[in-house]
Order: sequence, then C-alpha cells, then structure tokens
Amino acid sequence: MLDLSSWYEKHKAQLREDYFRFLRFRSISSEAEFKSEIIACAHWVRDYLAASCFETKLIETSGHPIVYAENMLAGPDKPTVLIYGHYDVQPVDPLENWQSDPFEPTERGGKVYARGAVDDKGQIFYAMVALRALMEQAQSLPINVKFCIEGEEEMGSMGLSNLLPTIKEQLRADYLLVVDHDSYDETTPAINLGCRGILSMDISLSGSKADLHSGLMGGIAYNPNRALVQLLAKFYDSDGRVTVDGFYDDVVELTEKEKKVFPAGHDKAYYTKEFGIEAFGKEKERTLQEANVFRPTLEINGMAGGYFGLGFKTVIPAKAIAKISCRLVPNQDPHKIGRQIVSFLEKHCVKGMKLETHLHPGAFAFRSDSHSRLAVAVAEASESVVGKPCRKTLSGGSIPVVADLSKAIRAETVGMGYGLATDQIHAPNEHFDFHRFRWGFLTVAGAVQRL
Amino acid sequence: MLDLSSWYEKHKAQLREDYFRFLRFRSISSEAEFKSEIIACAHWVRDYLAASCFETKLIETSGHPIVYAENMLAGPDKPTVLIYGHYDVQPVDPLENWQSDPFEPTERGGKVYARGAVDDKGQIFYAMVALRALMEQAQSLPINVKFCIEGEEEMGSMGLSNLLPTIKEQLRADYLLVVDHDSYDETTPAINLGCRGILSMDISLSGSKADLHSGLMGGIAYNPNRALVQLLAKFYDSDGRVTVDGFYDDVVELTEKEKKVFPAGHDKAYYTKEFGIEAFGKEKERTLQEANVFRPTLEINGMAGGYFGLGFKTVIPAKAIAKISCRLVPNQDPHKIGRQIVSFLEKHCVKGMKLETHLHPGAFAFRSDSHSRLAVAVAEASESVVGKPCRKTLSGGSIPVVADLSKAIRAETVGMGYGLATDQIHAPNEHFDFHRFRWGFLTVAGAVQRL
Repeated sequence: MLDLSSWYEKHKAQLREDYFRFLRFRSISSEAEFKSEIIACAHWVRDYLAASCFETKLIETSGHPIVYAENMLAGPDKPTVLIYGHYDVQPVDPLENWQSDPFEPTERGGKVYARGAVDDKGQIFYAMVALRALMEQAQSLPINVKFCIEGEEEMGSMGLSNLLPTIKEQLRADYLLVVDHDSYDETTPAINLGCRGILSMDISLSGSKADLHSGLMGGIAYNPNRALVQLLAKFYDSDGRVTVDGFYDDVVELTEKEKKVFPAGHDKAYYTKEFGIEAFGKEKERTLQEANVFRPTLEINGMAGGYFGLGFKTVIPAKAIAKISCRLVPNQDPHKIGRQIVSFLEKHCVKGMKLETHLHPGAFAFRSDSHSRLAVAVAEASESVVGKPCRKTLSGGSIPVVADLSKAIRAETVGMGYGLATDQIHAPNEHFDFHRFRWGFLTVAGAVQRL
Repeated sequence: MLDLSSWYEKHKAQLREDYFRFLRFRSISSEAEFKSEIIACAHWVRDYLAASCFETKLIETSGHPIVYAENMLAGPDKPTVLIYGHYDVQPVDPLENWQSDPFEPTERGGKVYARGAVDDKGQIFYAMVALRALMEQAQSLPINVKFCIEGEEEMGSMGLSNLLPTIKEQLRADYLLVVDHDSYDETTPAINLGCRGILSMDISLSGSKADLHSGLMGGIAYNPNRALVQLLAKFYDSDGRVTVDGFYDDVVELTEKEKKVFPAGHDKAYYTKEFGIEAFGKEKERTLQEANVFRPTLEINGMAGGYFGLGFKTVIPAKAIAKISCRLVPNQDPHKIGRQIVSFLEKHCVKGMKLETHLHPGAFAFRSDSHSRLAVAVAEASESVVGKPCRKTLSGGSIPVVADLSKAIRAETVGMGYGLATDQIHAPNEHFDFHRFRWGFLTVAGAVQRL
C-alpha cells in the first residue's frame, strides 16, 4: 500500500497554496461579467492536471469550457473511472453578509472561508490532488482515469448536456464518480446514490407602462406586487402540497424496503439548532426526510417588485418578478412539469396583467445501485479513512447533468464528498476545513486503488 | 391690475435658470447620504425668498430643516395666507429607466425632465416667483404672506408635525394654500378640497440564520418568500376588499349630494391609453373614482426576498421583506389602522417564522369647504388664467402634514397645482412644462391679489 498520508503531510503547504489559488478565481458562471475569470480558472485546472501526467484539453461548449483530462496508461484491459466535478461557483450576494472577501480565502477557527471552498472547488481539488499523489508515488495508476470538470454546473450544465451526444465516446467509462456531495454528518462518511432533478423559471408580471404613484393611482391600477403574491400563494394548499395540476402524477412512492436502504434524516431540533429554522415547509403528512429527498418541491428562490431600499417610496411598480425552481424525483419529467406550471400561472394570473415566463433547461433526478463495484469501493475507502461505517444517502439537491451523463456513458454512478449541510454552500460565508479535505483526498485515492 | 404676463416674459430666461438650479439639488429626503444636498437646497430656497423681500429663517427639526419666510408688511388688519410646499423629492430608482440624469434637468419636446420637476419643486417655485413678481411690480403685497417649505414631505413630514405645537403661532394664518396638486386635465384647472391620509409600514419575515440551499433544505425549511406571499395575499378577498379586521369600520359613506360636488373621474379606457393599465384593482362594487378618492387602499409598495439578479441562484433566503402603505379616508385613524394591520399579520403569519413590523408616522385624511374665500379666490384666478371653469377635486394621494397643519393653525385650506397624472411624479422621467409653470405663477399671483 502506498503511504498517501505521508505524501499529504509533506505537500501540505503547497496544497494549501494551490487550493487558495483555485478559490481566488471569481468563476461565477451565471454572471457574464466574470467570463474571463471562468476561462482563466479552466486553464488553471487543466494545467494542474497536465502537471499530474494527464493528457488534457479544454472542450468548448455553447457556454463555458469543460476541462477534460485522461490518463489511460493502465491499458484497455483495465476499467476506467470518470471523475466529475465543476470549477464554477454560485453568485455571492448578499455580499455584505460575508465576513471576509468571498474570493480571498481566509482561515478562521480552522476553517477556510471562500465561495467554492466546498462546492465544488474544494471537493474536486482533493480528487485532483489524490490522482497527482498516486502518480507521484507509484509512477502509474491501477486503472484508467478521466476527469470531466465543467464550468456551468451552477447554471444548469447546458453546455455539457448539449454536447453529450458528440463527446459521449470520449467520456466513456465503467464508473462515474461524482465528487460534489456531503458526508452523513461530521464524523460519518456517506456515498450518494441519487439526487433530485431540477426545473427553474423566471416569472414577471407587468401592469402598466411605468411605475405609478400609489396615492394618485391607488384603487385604480391593480398592483403587480399584489397580483404576484396572489399568484405565487396559490402554488400551495394548506397542507403544504403544491397545487399545480398534475405535479405529483408521476411520483412513484417508495416501498418501505426501499426507504430502509437510507438512514433516517435529522429531526426538527437539529435544524432549529444548526440553522435557526422553526417553521417547516414540508407536506403535512410526510416526514422531513421524505420531504427532502423522496418528494418534489416548488420554491420561490427570489422575488422583487417596487421599492425596497432604505426609506419608503409610495409606488405601484410597473412590474414584479419572481424566480422559482422545483426539485424533482425519479420519473418526473422537468419539461412536463415546466409546462404544467406555465399553464397554472396562465390560468390563475389576474386578467389584464401581462404575464411572462421563461423556462430554463431542467434535469431529471437519478438513482444508483447501492451494490455496484464503485459503490462498494468508495464505501470501503471512506470507512477505512474515517473509521466509521459509510452511510448510503440521497440528496435533496441536484447535479443537473449527472442523470444525463450517467445515461450517455452507461456507467455505474456514485456520488461522494465531505460537505456538510452547515458549510453554507450557495450562501455567504461558505467554508470547508482541512481535515475533511484530507479525508476526501484519501478516499478518492483509496477508491481508485480498490477498483 | 399689474401686468404679470409681461413681467414673466421679461424674466423668462432667469426663471428657467433658477428653476433648473433648484432641480439640480439631490434633495432626496429618505436617503441619509443626501443630507448635505438637502441642507444646500434649503439654503437656496431661503436665499431666493430673502431676495424677494421676505424675512426668512430655517427652522431646525428632528429631521431636515423647514424654510420659513414671511412678508407681513400689509399689516395686522389684512388677512394672512400661508403657502405650503416642499423642497424634498422622492428617490430615483430604478435609475436605469430614466432617459436623462434625474438631477440634470433636460428639455425634450417642450417638457422639462427631472426628479422634482413637478413634485414639488416646480410647483412651489412658481409660487415663490409669483410673490417676487408681485413685490417687484407693486413694491408691496395686498395681504400678509408666509411660506412654509419643508424638507420631509416625501418621508412623512415628521419634523414639521412634531414641531407644530411649538411653531403654530408663528405659522398662524387665515388661509393655507397647499401648492402640490394636479389640475383636472391638460386644459382644465382645479382646486383640491381634500386628500387621503396615509399609513406605511415595513414588514420582514425571517426563517433561518442564513440563506439556505433550496435543494439540500428544500422540503424542510419553510421558505420566507412563500410565507410572505401567503401572508400578503391574505390582505385581499376575491372582490378586491381589504380583509384586515375593522379596516372599513370608520369609513363614512358619502351622500350622493356630496359626491356630486366632485366631477366624475376618468374611465378605464383613459387609464389603458395613458398608462397601459389593463387590470384594475378596485373593490368590485365601487367605481374607479370611488376607489381612488372615497375608499381606503392597501398597497404593497415594495417587496424583495432571495436572489433576483441576472442568472439564477437556488436559494431559500433567510429573510423576505415588504413595504406596504394604506391610503385613508376621513374619519380613519392611521394609528388604529396600523394596529389592526399588525394584529392581522401576527394572526396570519406562519408559525415559527419571525415576523417584524415597523410602523412609520401616519397622517389623517382631510377635507375643505368648497365655499371658503380662499377656494373662491383660487378658483377665480385659475379660471381667468386658463380660460375654463375650475373643477373641484379630491386627491387619492396624501400630503401627510396638511391635515395636522390646517388644524393647528385653524386656517381655511385649499390645494392648487398644475400637475397631471401623466407627469410621472415618483417614477422615472418625471416632467413638467413651462406653459403650466406660467399658469401656476399667474394663478398664485391672481389669488393673492383677490384675497
């Protein structure tokens, strides 16, 4: 067995420096102004893998480039694993809630604070480092390894999705390891066997050519803010169910046996303590775990209308907007759900109010086999690293492209990672720590050796 | 009779220059960063009146100063008129919708575009000019004249309101002329005999310590955006009535005779053509005019929660906010309505969601006598200037301090002005034109001569 722990100790300072360099790229995929940072970040990732004995290239897409890398020296009789991750990150607003610059990684209390510290730069980087360590120690890899690190995961992975028919042979692998997940809790590793799908949409309501005075026009004009809250409120019934016609039609209820594969989730007290949550949004008759992974959701991710700054402005706005998204479970088709929601909005919108909707590309949910060779290898590796039994989990989140990718390359798929729900990914003050980074490094290396 | 038209023609270029200077002050009262512009603007107004033979002073308040001026040379046996207006303006967002800088007055197609072009710099300035012209032409005034030009009208006039018990003797007058109103239409003058009262409030709902990931927490956390739209939607029933308990209790229905004093308002086609309004927000069984002036309203002036910029962010926000305001009719107490709304919110808010409300100072509605000497003088003056009968109107808007001021100084009160509903006051591209400015100038001068 190789001594990867010693290698890690020896290279610690350099790893920290490289990790921080990676985090400094402002690679926010959804905001056009960061395009040059995205490109620079992709080049940096490619160069890092090239320096680890990988053949690399940037695959251009309709959006941001994919970093592709392969080391096929194990030969055609050996299996191939494709490691998937992403180098793009979420936007950083509200910026004022960050305690330090989101793109200047800062250590406080043993944690590294930065946008992408976990999701997904921190996680994909320990996988990159693991392969570098294996190469440096053994001068060869026991299996063939490919990397697919894309730049549009946080905005729907459209570039990679659209390109799959063209590049699926290039990405072809026996195993797909998705390094973008959480552990079960702080001291218990987990493998992920499924994610929810996603569908997102922009909605706007316009009521007049320009903003109006709420006194002079009050009582006359129908306020778009009012029309919007009335419309969005109709999405939910008093039991917390989504009221869109057909929304639950394709949901397949899990058997009790199927549910038992997955450990019970946390209780309400945990969410209150960790996140300050005291109001729970689930369907009344469901458990928190069911609501989080076995049931679809509809969330209002953003809404705005009128004046909401300091002071007060007595306005009836010309327009009000909302951004909504759904998390979907297996067998739900995002396109179909999207059409159902648009129909719902058209049916319930106040007459005379101008409704506009814009659907973004969606993604199906996916589920994996808990007995696959990859699942066993990752589970064993993590157990040996962390010293506790590995749990099997499903994620309430989505990695939109994974269902498509897994299907296109026909690979056994497993998710792994050492994120925690308390890491504030997608929120201000996202953070990770080095002992989890090290666990991730050792788990990836251990899984590759076991395959 | 003095030849005021000739005086106006002779001074036209200078008036334009002074008017534009007045408009350039960024005197947004509700935003703290503009404090120095507010002060500079108050000084400029004071200096202008001082140069027109008025004794002037700035009255300090808890907020922005009041410009006070008086010319009492007509003597104690002559009546006194107090002219009220304000030098502060509304905020300018959304800035990107302005076709020219809101604080750099720009003429396009015969109109002057700037924040405050009408409300209220344009209107109070023609009154200031009218008194200068009278003094220059006659070397004296036929009656005693006072000015009270405050700097907090757009944020509730708290400073002036609180100071009324102290300064009411100083402001004492027989007549109160409020120069902050609209004409009936483009070619028909009007006097205003009443405004609605107002009440405004900030509302926030918090559901967690920090923003959450809408996948990882979706189904678990109750989204504050969802709680807010559900809460705000409950304000209205399907007939457009406000559902807050007791909201209409103190509304006194007008007799048909009382209603007949006021001309019928515009029809729906007018609002569609002028403003693009196709959805009307009135109570079902009321006419547009009733809804606009005889009935109270509740409007959502602003709301915001989560991410609503470019792209998409799959977040469950920690907090969502709204700003609401009510327009009130005579006999409704803003404090009482405020308490009723807070009770309503507390009763209907999702359990576990943290609700915070902040009530701003409100104002009662007011109504004036259509037969008062002041009403007759202003109506006659405007008819002689414009050449059409003057209409009597009520405003759906509010001038919060007027009810208090009128009561404190026990004066006959009338509103006048040459604004139009299409002037985009409180909105981007506010505008006025010089022929209405001239009408205003001549009407004020004529009314003072007639009193």
